[in-house]
Parts: sequence; C-alpha cells; structure tokens
Amino acid sequence: MARPLHLHPDRLLPSEPDTRKLARALYDSVAQLPIVSPHGHTDPAWFASDQSFGNAADLLLKPDHYVFRMLYSQGVPLEALGIRNPDADPREAWRLLARNYHLFRGTPSRMWLDWVFSVAFGIDVQLEAETSDLYFDSITEKLATDAFRPRALFDRYGIEVIATTESPLDTLEHHAAIRAENARVGGWQGRVITAYRPDPVIDPEFEGFRDNLRRLAEITGEDCLTWHGYLAAHRQRRAFFASMGATSTDHGHPTPCTADLPLAEAEALFARVATGEFTAGDAELFRAQMLTEMAAMSVEDGLVMQIHPGSFRNHNAGIFERFGRDKGADIPVRTEFVANLKPLLDRFGNEPNLSIILFTLDESTYARELAPLAGHYPCLKLGPAWWFHDSPEGMRRFRAMTTETAGFYNTVGFNDDTRAFLSIPARHDVARRIDCGFLAQLVSEHRLEDWEAAELAHDLTVGLVRKAYKL
Amino acid sequence: MARPLHLHPDRLLPSEPDTRKLARALYDSVAQLPIVSPHGHTDPAWFASDQSFGNAADLLLKPDHYVFRMLYSQGVPLEALGIRNPDADPREAWRLLARNYHLFRGTPSRMWLDWVFSVAFGIDVQLEAETSDLYFDSITEKLATDAFRPRALFDRYGIEVIATTESPLDTLEHHAAIRAENARVGGWQGRVITAYRPDPVIDPEFEGFRDNLRRLAEITGEDCLTWHGYLAAHRQRRAFFASMGATSTDHGHPTPCTADLPLAEAEALFARVATGEFTAGDAELFRAQMLTEMAAMSVEDGLVMQIHPGSFRNHNAGIFERFGRDKGADIPVRTEFVANLKPLLDRFGNEPNLSIILFTLDESTYARELAPLAGHYPCLKLGPAWWFHDSPEGMRRFRAMTTETAGFYNTVGFNDDTRAFLSIPARHDVARRIDCGFLAQLVSEHRLEDWEAAELAHDLTVGLVRKAYKL
Amino acid sequence: MARPLHLHPDRLLPSEPDTRKLARALYDSVAQLPIVSPHGHTDPAWFASDQSFGNAADLLLKPDHYVFRMLYSQGVPLEALGIRNPDADPREAWRLLARNYHLFRGTPSRMWLDWVFSVAFGIDVQLEAETSDLYFDSITEKLATDAFRPRALFDRYGIEVIATTESPLDTLEHHAAIRAENARVGGWQGRVITAYRPDPVIDPEFEGFRDNLRRLAEITGEDCLTWHGYLAAHRQRRAFFASMGATSTDHGHPTPCTADLPLAEAEALFARVATGEFTAGDAELFRAQMLTEMAAMSVEDGLVMQIHPGSFRNHNAGIFERFGRDKGADIPVRTEFVANLKPLLDRFGNEPNLSIILFTLDESTYARELAPLAGHYPCLKLGPAWWFHDSPEGMRRFRAMTTETAGFYNTVGFNDDTRAFLSIPARHDVARRIDCGFLAQLVSEHRLEDWEAAELAHDLTVGLVRKAYKL
Repeated sequence: MARPLHLHPDRLLPSEPDTRKLARALYDSVAQLPIVSPHGHTDPAWFASDQSFGNAADLLLKPDHYVFRMLYSQGVPLEALGIRNPDADPREAWRLLARNYHLFRGTPSRMWLDWVFSVAFGIDVQLEAETSDLYFDSITEKLATDAFRPRALFDRYGIEVIATTESPLDTLEHHAAIRAENARVGGWQGRVITAYRPDPVIDPEFEGFRDNLRRLAEITGEDCLTWHGYLAAHRQRRAFFASMGATSTDHGHPTPCTADLPLAEAEALFARVATGEFTAGDAELFRAQMLTEMAAMSVEDGLVMQIHPGSFRNHNAGIFERFGRDKGADIPVRTEFVANLKPLLDRFGNEPNLSIILFTLDESTYARELAPLAGHYPCLKLGPAWWFHDSPEGMRRFRAMTTETAGFYNTVGFNDDTRAFLSIPARHDVARRIDCGFLAQLVSEHRLEDWEAAELAHDLTVGLVRKAYKL
Repeated sequence: MARPLHLHPDRLLPSEPDTRKLARALYDSVAQLPIVSPHGHTDPAWFASDQSFGNAADLLLKPDHYVFRMLYSQGVPLEALGIRNPDADPREAWRLLARNYHLFRGTPSRMWLDWVFSVAFGIDVQLEAETSDLYFDSITEKLATDAFRPRALFDRYGIEVIATTESPLDTLEHHAAIRAENARVGGWQGRVITAYRPDPVIDPEFEGFRDNLRRLAEITGEDCLTWHGYLAAHRQRRAFFASMGATSTDHGHPTPCTADLPLAEAEALFARVATGEFTAGDAELFRAQMLTEMAAMSVEDGLVMQIHPGSFRNHNAGIFERFGRDKGADIPVRTEFVANLKPLLDRFGNEPNLSIILFTLDESTYARELAPLAGHYPCLKLGPAWWFHDSPEGMRRFRAMTTETAGFYNTVGFNDDTRAFLSIPARHDVARRIDCGFLAQLVSEHRLEDWEAAELAHDLTVGLVRKAYKL
Repeated sequence: MARPLHLHPDRLLPSEPDTRKLARALYDSVAQLPIVSPHGHTDPAWFASDQSFGNAADLLLKPDHYVFRMLYSQGVPLEALGIRNPDADPREAWRLLARNYHLFRGTPSRMWLDWVFSVAFGIDVQLEAETSDLYFDSITEKLATDAFRPRALFDRYGIEVIATTESPLDTLEHHAAIRAENARVGGWQGRVITAYRPDPVIDPEFEGFRDNLRRLAEITGEDCLTWHGYLAAHRQRRAFFASMGATSTDHGHPTPCTADLPLAEAEALFARVATGEFTAGDAELFRAQMLTEMAAMSVEDGLVMQIHPGSFRNHNAGIFERFGRDKGADIPVRTEFVANLKPLLDRFGNEPNLSIILFTLDESTYARELAPLAGHYPCLKLGPAWWFHDSPEGMRRFRAMTTETAGFYNTVGFNDDTRAFLSIPARHDVARRIDCGFLAQLVSEHRLEDWEAAELAHDLTVGLVRKAYKL
C-alpha cells in the first residue's frame, strides 16, 4: 500500500494555534494573487515554440542541480541520472530519485517537488521505490498533453510576467517570437521579458571571454577592443534588451567589489583584459570598474541593477571537467559589501534614478551590512533570500535579520530564480506562507496591527516587486 | 476616522499562552523598577538648564538618525526634514514623517515612537497623514508645559542615574551645574554622570586631532607633544571626569585592535601621530596601543572600560560633505576580537581590578568569540545588543547566542545608548520584555526554575548594571 | 529548607502543547536506545583498571574546563578549585562551585550536572551553599561503591561502544588490556576503541614536536627524518590503531587549510620542519599537506577522517604559563572551508572510499559553506554542533542552518566529545530531545510526515553514527 501524498493547507504556518489562524487569514488574502517573477532562468524557447516537455526525468531531474547534487552527495553517479549521458534510461534515473527520496526530507526541494507531484500532476501517493514507475508514467503521459505545454502552464499558473536571463551575445530571437505572438490577433498573451546578464563579456576569467568580445563587436558594429567602443556596445545591447522588455540587469560577480578609476586607468586596464595579458587582480578590478560603469548606464537608461555575488563556481574540479558548469558544485563564500560597494556608492549612492538590488549567500551580512546599507542609501534595496537560503528557514532568517533595520519597504518581494518551471508556483507559495507567518508572529506579539499586516502581505507578494522591478 | 493607537500590555511577550503567562509575571515584577542608564548620549545641558524642548520635529525627528535614515533611504531629502536646514518648516517636516510612517513597520523605532506618542504624550490615534497636524500641535503644546521639561521627565521616568558621554576636552560645566543643583538645599536630585570618551584625542584620524592635542595641553597644563605628558594629561582628565561622577570610559575605535609596545616604540609612534606625519597603519597601531594604556589607567583608577568597535563611520561621502557626521550613514563591518584583544589581555587579562565591557555590531562574534572570551577572562563582560541590534530580534539573538557559553552573569544589563531622551523608558521597557520572554521560554522548557527566572529578571534589569558600572 | 531538584520529563521539548506531544512521542521512541559514542576523551585506563573515581571535586570539578572556566571568569582563582594545586581541600573547592552554581543558569553544564546529580547519584535537592557538603559527601561515598566503578557505569549507561582519542605515540596498553578482558571467558564485554589523533607528530608548532618525531621513529623503526619514512611510520601506527578498534582519525588543526604539493616540495618542506628550521607559514603548509596525506591513507585503510579546526588554543598567556593546556582558555576563531579544502578535494573529493567529517566552531559557516559542501561532495559529512555549540540552542541552530541544504543524511548523529564520563548519558539525552523537538516542529508545520520523523529520530540517534563511523 503506497503512502498517501497530501499537502496540508496549513503547511509552513506557525504552530501556535492563534498565530496560525492569523497567518492563515493573511495567506488566504494573497494565495491567489498573480505570480510576478522578475528574476529567473526559464528558457524563452519554451514559450516561443510551446513544445511539450518530454519525460519526467528530462523535465524534473536532469536539469535540477538542487536535486542531483543531493543524490550525488550520497554516492549516486551523475551518469546514472542521465547527466551528460544520453544512454541513461530515464525510467532508471527516475528510480534512483524515487529510491533516495528520503534524502530530501527537510529540504525545500522536497516541498517544491511534492507540490509539483500533487498539485500540478494530481498524484496522490508518496514518491518511493514502489511508486517510481507509476510516477514516471503518469508524469510522462501528462506532459504529452496540451494542458502541460509551456503556454498552458504559464496561463494556468497565473503568471503575470516572467523574466528570463540572457547574455548580451544572445539574439533574443525567442523573445522576439513571443512578442510577435503577443501582438498577433488572438495570439498568446503571456508576458515574457529578458534581463541583461553581461558576465560573459565583463568577466575576463569567463570561459571564452576574448571570443565573446569579438562576437559583441560583430553584433554591435562597435570596436570592442577599445574602451570607448566596448562601453558603446554595452549601451547598444542594453537598449536592445530594453526593447525586448528588459527592466533589469544582473551581475554574478565573485565579489561585490566596485571601483571608480580615472578614464586613463580604465582604458589601460581594459587594454590588458582585452588582449588577455592580465593578472587575477586585473580581472577583479575590471569587474569592479564595470559594476560602476553599469550603474552609470542604469542612471541613464533606468534599468534596475541586480548584484548576485559570493558564489565559488565549479568548486569540484573533477565534476567540472567531466560534466561542465552548474552541476551543484557552486559553494558560497564569505562576502563583504561595506568597503566593496563604496567606490560605486561614492559616485552614485544618492542618485534618484538608480536602483540596485543586492543579494547575498552570506547570511552574516544581512543584519551587519546589508540592512544598514539599504536602510540608508536611496539607491539600494535588498533582494530576497537567495539560492541555498531560498527555503523556509532561510526566508525566516532573512526577515528576522533585515526587517528591524531596513524595514519591509527596502525589500523587493520574492524571486523564484529558477529554471524548474513546473515548480514556480510552489516556490512563490512557500514565500507567501513564510511571509504571512512572519507577519502573523509580529501581530501576535503586538508589534504590528492586523490591518498593517494585511497591507504588508499584499505588498510583499505583488506590490514591492512590481515597483522595484518597474513591472 | 483615525485608527486607534493602543499599546497592548502583552506586546513583545511570547505567543504561546502558557509561556506568555510566565513572561507576564516576570515582566510585572520588574516593569516598575528604576531606570539605570549607564551609557548614553543625552545632553547634560538639558538637565542643567531645564529649558523646554521646542517643537515635535526638533525633538523627535531632527536629532534621531534612526528615523531620518529610513526616510532618506526611501527618497525623502534630508533638507526637507530640516537637517542642516533652518528654513525647513517643522510642521512640513513632521508631515513627511507622518506620511511615511508605514516605512517603520517592524522596526524598533516604530515601537519607541509609539510609546512616546501614547504613554508620554497621551495620544490615542495612529500617526498617519491625516493625524499629522494633530500630532504636531499636541506634542508641541505639551512640550511647552512644565511637565515636559527635562527634569520633570527625568523624575517621572523613574531614572535612578543616567550617564552622558563627553570628550576629554569638555569642561563638564553642565555636570558641575547639575551637581551644584543636587547639593542645593531643596535642589533637584537627579543623578547625571559623565563618561570619558577620549576618541577625539586618541584617534589620529579624528577631525582636528592635532588641534585637540593642543587644547588638551592647554586644559591640563601638560606637554601633550610628549608621550609622557600626553599620558599624564589623560590621567588628569580621567580624575576630573571621575570627580564629575564618571565610572566608565568609552572607546569607539574602528576595530578592537590592541597593542603593547615597548616604551621607546610607543614614544616614537606618538611622536609620528602628534606631528601629523603618520600612515594609516600608524593610526591603527596608536589606537591599539592606547586601548592598552587606557586599561593600565583603569587598573589604577577603577574606571570601567567600554569598547564599541566595528562601525564604518560616515560611509556616504556626499552626505558627510553636505550634512556632517551622524547622519545615519554609519555601517557595521566584520569585527575580530580574539587576536585583536590578545596584547591587552596578555598584559591585564587576569587583573582583578580591571573591567572591560565589549560591544559588537557583528553578531557572528557573539557565540564564536565574545561569549567564550567573557566566559573565561575575569576582566571581560559583554555589553548588551548594540545599535542596529538594540531591537527585539537583536536582543533575542544576543541572549540565544551568548547565554549558553557566557551565562547571564557575564553580561551587564541594558544600555539605551541614546540621545532620544523621550524614548528612554520605551527602550528599557523593550529590553525588560524581551529578557522576561527569554527567561519564560527557559522556564517553559524546564531549563530554569521559576524562582531562578525571577531572580534573573531582577538582575538583568538593575542588579548587573549597578554592579558592572559601579553605580 | 533545601529547594527540590527535579528533572522534568518534558525538558527541552517545544513549548507549544501539540508540538510538545509530537516531540515527546518521538523522544520516547529513542530515549532508551544504546549510546554510540564515536568521538570523545574518556581515559581508557578507567576501563582497563576499573578503579574507583575518587571524590566529587576530583571527578566532577577539577577535570571539567567548562565548569572551572565559568568560575574563573567571575573571579574564583583556579588554585582554590584545586587546579594544579594538590593542597587545595576538595570539600572547599566543591563549596566554591556550590556557592556559585547560579552562574551556570542557562548553560548546558547546568543541565549535564543536574542530570548527574539527580539521575546518576539520586540527589533530590538543588546544589547551593547550604547543600554543598551533603552533595560532596553523598557523591564521594557513592563513588567508593562498586556500582560507581567505570565498568559498572559503562554497562548501566547502556554504552554500545565508546571511542577514546590517542596520539600515535601512545602504546595503547589500556586498549590492549580491555581487549584482553573482552576476550577472557566471562570477562567484561564493554567495547572501547581508540582513534588516531596525530597532531603531536603532525603540527610542527606542537610542544615537543621534534622529540615526538624521535619517539615515533623509535616506536615504528622507521626513519622519521625522511619524508618517506615519516609517512611509513604513520601508515604503521594507523594499522596498529585499527587493530585496537580504531575506525577514525582526528585532526585538531588551527585551520582546515589543505595542500597537495609535488613530492619534491613536500620532501623539502618536511626537511625544514623536521630540523626545526621553519617559519609559521611552513608550519601551516605542513599541516595542510598532512591533511591531504591523511586522506590518501584513509582511501587505502578506510579510517574515517575527522577535522576539528578553528580553536585558538591557550589564549590566556598567564594561565597557560601557570596551569598549562586545556584550562578553558581556548577561543574559537573565524574559519574558512571553501578555499582551504579545495586542494584535498581536487585530489580526493569524488573518491568513493573516503569519508571526512567536518566540524566547526564558526556557526556562520553552517549554511554558507559546510551544508553546500556536504550537500555535494560524496566524501564530506557534517559532524554535530561542537564544543561551545554542543548545547540546546547550538544544536537547534545547527539543524536549522544545515538541514535545508545538506539534508539529515549528510550528518552523522551525535558526539559527546567529553572526558566527563559521568555526564555522557545526559549529553546524548540533550541531543535526542533537541533532535526530536526539531523533527516535531517540522511535523507540526507539515514539512515532514510523522512516520518520516520517527524514522529520522532513530537514524539521528543510532543509524547515522553507526554508518558514518563504521561501528
């Protein structure tokens, strides 16, 4: 007898009965609000082509590094899961997940997946060895139906807008196709926008950086071997991205280091990185200078900056060699914002037309650095709990450690930040539940009036994100 | 219809009903105890002259950097609030606060202000745009009455003793006037003491440091261009401060770095800083050496040392230039105590006649560094959660992260650390509520007996502070 | 009238009544499971000789640096407690503990000691000045009885296996004696194993390092002045330790720095440290290289590695000089794992036959570094909350900050890590209560099914530790 799968309506709400009741009422008031997803990694090709997603393992297991990293940590070979291995049988790969599903107890992946199984696919038994094939067949069959094609899911999920993330070298052809479809009489109306993520042409240590500069020059017609031409190319691509709906840029630097060099020094530095004759210090300084340059362009074109620092990418050398990037081996490192951001802030910190959203993987910076910075500088806002911290406990720590100094109104709502499209509503749902639980706790301790909590629940769900990302 | 303003009697106490009941009983036993305020920034001139405080904005908005920093972070210009702008209409400034009062939801400023509005001024409606003028007029009128003059408030607030903070260059004339008043037959009996804060004559990077040395020489008659004379001047001023009631010194260094140089090196270092020919490293080393010198003097004269490190002062260059110091742009930085304090501790760590109270803005040091240090060294005690962490969640984290290693008896009670005189009882009240809630939680989990919690509630409120600060 | 001492059956369980009920049921299911103690510092001589323990102060006060550090922090001289002072009267020393027992309120030492007093010795009044002699006499009398000899306690405590920790220079004669006793017909069956702690012959800065190398050479017959001979000596001693039951090694380095030098560089580095002509950088690099060498040997012989970094040992110079090591003056420091472990992980991170258990005293690394590392690398597991963090709040933070990323199954159960033999069941009991409370909270928030929590309670108590330590 398989064990039942049942999502409790009060999941993630506080245990104390009166506080839970308050939280439940708040949650009920926002549960059905549309999903505003200003930062993520879904593939625009899905919405452009509206093709079916394939089988259960292809959709839910192979692309999800949260899932396969945990299996790998307990000795499951990546090859067996089908990673870089087209010969792997997806049904067998799925069985590995099913047999090891207990590893996810207490993790957000478990909550997200259970939501997908239960709500999206209507499965009513737990995933375990015995139900593996039932899951695989049931999910794979449903994925072949029209109701599970990308646009249908987008509409069913109540997505108001979703942003993808692209390199300046991307042609944005899928976005163009979606916009053409939007404009077609009777066409699909889903709003899919891009975001400008220039790391491949900004980070001198990015794989293929110099080739990327060459391609940037080709695409823009600018001379990307001169500092002036290189900056002009950025301006041109930012304008093109904005024409494809972008309201933001995104910067995944190793650190939040910024610099504000005199022109001659910046030119000389660029000359070194562009020719490949640079030190590690040069690379860091160039990334630092470019954050300030991006801020300067944002002052002009109004794109909101997002800074996502502090991930040591591809930490596992053996895995990187055999399987490439994004295989669950990115590890957070200590991050420093106060000295690092100062050059940029000295130049633009009081600029009314600039908005910078800061993220961190180092929670020790929440109360110490980020909340005090965001609670003072008009241009700074705090992004939500990110990546490893996008979890019930992580979100609670975020609110507990930032609210008292930065308030709620220097935060920007939730980001799902995911390529796991099926789970997007589950992720927003977790955030809404945790935020409502946090607000209910404040009401229960008489630190907030109930009508204020209701306003805040709405603001944290849709109000702040629309405003912060200009959506 | 304005919304009612009502402070719930159970605010900040735990939600779970039985635990709340325990907490309430503990709180009731300490709620009316006198206020012992051993560290703060009220102006002794208030108590010396007993002049009225002026209007609502002058008293509650313009001097409170917790308040105007938040407004500034959301785009309200400081000029409009009257900061360095005598032309600003205080009523209009107050309206900016009222219109934006929702920004403070979830912050301690909101709780302190609501207490001042409700308890101190008897206002019974919420502050919002509609009630702004009612607030402004009502507060301003009350401030003109005798009941709202400094001494009357001091007495009404049940303040047993309050310490202010002065530079060695201060003549302490207001303290002298208060002491004369205290000594007058039928005179006001409020106890106002000073504390010795020598940063302006110890930190070579302080604005006007060399001028300050010159003034110190004038005041003391010592040759403050020699190391020996400079130290003698400190001794003299410390004795003078002690004669004006001081029981403590206070040191706001960027880091808790200490040093214990041989005499010849200390003399040479002082010669460099005194002539202005010094490096940043010299400045840090001099501050470090001076912490050890201050400890040496404390061993002699018994003044308790307070070290408040880890604030990056005046981070916003543009604001500093236009508006000066203390404008809400001080940002905490990572702080290291274990290696930094070792030179001082190697010399004086086991000295029975030395007491050093450590504060931090870096909560990651609570459990890792500070509690283990204070749980071993007889001379070290832990100051309460400071500044950004002087808040319900901040205080809870302080107790949760220090108690298990340092115990309660290596802490020193609460500091309000404020110039916002009107809110002092509100601040102490928050601390009492949070401490009683923490104790009630321990009782509820059977980690503490109820009679122990009652003893501790009293100790955390008045016992420890009187003993630690020799009051 | 002495106050009663009574351990509440629900101590440490969550306050909210329904959650407490869930926690109580989970706890009841594991409370009587055997104690598996894979890492600790009990003395094998106790079990080899089975002599009585002496008086109350000798057993419970003098060897417990958790206890005397707190007394010392409040001004009690170590001499008066009998530390390095055979003339001290143990009854008087015990009175100092009794009079100051309030200092331990809210600390784990208080909970452990109260368990020892109440459960192990059957005392039913609180320890305070008035009951000091009653305690001293009652405990000392009981210790003279057979029921309180080491083997009887071992059996009564339900210890399945206990590991001690020895230097490679140790002859393991007591372990040999215990194994002989185990093998004797009708002999005592207690399982006591050793663990290989090579710090004295790996850390060039350890007191007597070069003498230690000489002794290692004598014991093994290897030439420990050559790199090759030195490594061979390690291999030989590891094999000997394994023959005495060892399943693990343990490494107490100041940092988790690792290195993977080419052979010639390693040889040259060893030559420098072996002759005593080395810098602090050489010492750190040598320790770093040796972690990688130990990992290489573990791949061969299967011993599980434990790394315990981040303690600044003997911080109080005066105390170290007069009283020696382990006097409560070890202070945690900031620790970095991501860059530090990379050389070792680059070489062995994906090795199926390697298991490394990581500990930290820097809680900021839980969510940021350790959980992401353990949630990816197959060779890494997380040790339990360690030392200062082996406490109710410390354990809760450990679970709250590691579970969402690493899951439960990349952790290894509880370590008591103690020489305070009498309190071992109390320590395991605290861990079981806290874990069950954490699981109950997850069930209460519908993040975990009740049958999963029951499985996990068993796994966290005995399942994971047996597997991780190969017991």
